Amino acid sequence: MRPFQVENQVFGELRQAYLFADADDEQLTRLCVGMQILELPQGTALFHHGQPANRFFFVRAGQVKLFRVSPDGHEKIIEIIRAGQTFAEAVMFMGEQARYPVNCEAIEDTRLLAFDQKKFLQVLEQSHEISFGMLAAMSRRLHMLVNQIDSLTLQNATYRLVMYLLEEAPREARPGADLELTTPKSALASRLAIQPETFSRLLAKLRDQGLIEVHGPHIILRNLQGLRELVYVPAAEPPRLG
Amino acid sequence: MRPFQVENQVFGELRQAYLFADADDEQLTRLCVGMQILELPQGTALFHHGQPANRFFFVRAGQVKLFRVSPDGHEKIIEIIRAGQTFAEAVMFMGEQARYPVNCEAIEDTRLLAFDQKKFLQVLEQSHEISFGMLAAMSRRLHMLVNQIDSLTLQNATYRLVMYLLEEAPREARPGADLELTTPKSALASRLAIQPETFSRLLAKLRDQGLIEVHGPHIILRNLQGLRELVYVPAAEPPRLG
Repeated sequence: MRPFQVENQVFGELRQAYLFADADDEQLTRLCVGMQILELPQGTALFHHGQPANRFFFVRAGQVKLFRVSPDGHEKIIEIIRAGQTFAEAVMFMGEQARYPVNCEAIEDTRLLAFDQKKFLQVLEQSHEISFGMLAAMSRRLHMLVNQIDSLTLQNATYRLVMYLLEEAPREARPGADLELTTPKSALASRLAIQPETFSRLLAKLRDQGLIEVHGPHIILRNLQGLRELVYVPAAEPPRLG
Repeated sequence: MRPFQVENQVFGELRQAYLFADADDEQLTRLCVGMQILELPQGTALFHHGQPANRFFFVRAGQVKLFRVSPDGHEKIIEIIRAGQTFAEAVMFMGEQARYPVNCEAIEDTRLLAFDQKKFLQVLEQSHEISFGMLAAMSRRLHMLVNQIDSLTLQNATYRLVMYLLEEAPREARPGADLELTTPKSALASRLAIQPETFSRLLAKLRDQGLIEVHGPHIILRNLQGLRELVYVPAAEPPRLG
């Protein structure tokens, strides 16, 4: 038995991972049966592609890489796993015949918690409450991430469009001057690799901020300085639309 | 009974959603017991904040908004749900006392599938295979989204850093000229709102591409044209590092 305080700290760390986010202390105690603490010095392999996937892992400190090696020996990193994240849990849920689809190696000195697949799945089979809690936490996290991707995509699209518009504007343009560009929207969206739906949302946001006007194939730049501020980032905050 | 072909098409659509991605036809047949087809004309409310969350939904076509209304009547959109996505499933997993935390309204003519909470959870309680399949699919999707956010964050950080470096470079700089900027890295990262870890990865990538060199507080711009190409996006592809 470990002293209570250590458990408490481990529980706090585990709740950073979406898998454990909703579990209370009693549920975590059950999920941690058979859990082992591992120290993985930098450069050490944890598992290899094709080995039986009988454990999954939580990173307490340090980081590991998941990678494949091509036939010609070239290494392709699939994912970097950092403190607070779990890995190989998707494989674990795929059953007892599952094998690790990648290699894993510590890229720093890394401290891990290792969970035994069989024991972990047994606990889930015995408790719908724990399983549903996990599904709830994962659903919430998924929606959050999709939202975040949406907003990052819009940010990237903003940079590309605004950079393009500023490049098209003559250098000697007076501050405050209106500039009319004849740029069919559909051609512009395609050239800048922005999805039509994202492009429409972006134009609407820039218009709502008083930065541009759109009339058919004409885009009028109403506020060059405002557009420049969107991409030049003089402040300590990343630029965000709306 | 609906004809088999319709079922088949619905199954194909459902597998776009992470919740159903791993389910085979037999499992989907069980999960769809009690499922209803809804048509929601644009502007129609589907549920209100505080109502019992006894159903969750899959969007077949159109889109809905999830939103809250502040005490002063201002509407705040939490999420837009598009075709191929589920919503309110996180609430459903939270049990029978759960209530919708948001309002939902169709922002286009929308076709939905509605799943009954009780019947759906009963199927999961009866089949660990289905539950674990869902957990596996959700884990995989979560890792994929985290990767995607990582790469989008790096893209955004690239824009901000490269824009800054180009702004600092004198306009009359010759193509091919080296330019040395005295810019402490830590100050720069903080000013551009880039996490130290992301900043290091970014500098390493730009260095590996032969675009910059970094010597202590000095950043040398080795390839101005290459840096410009990273942010000006003349091609049809979005700029990507590495």
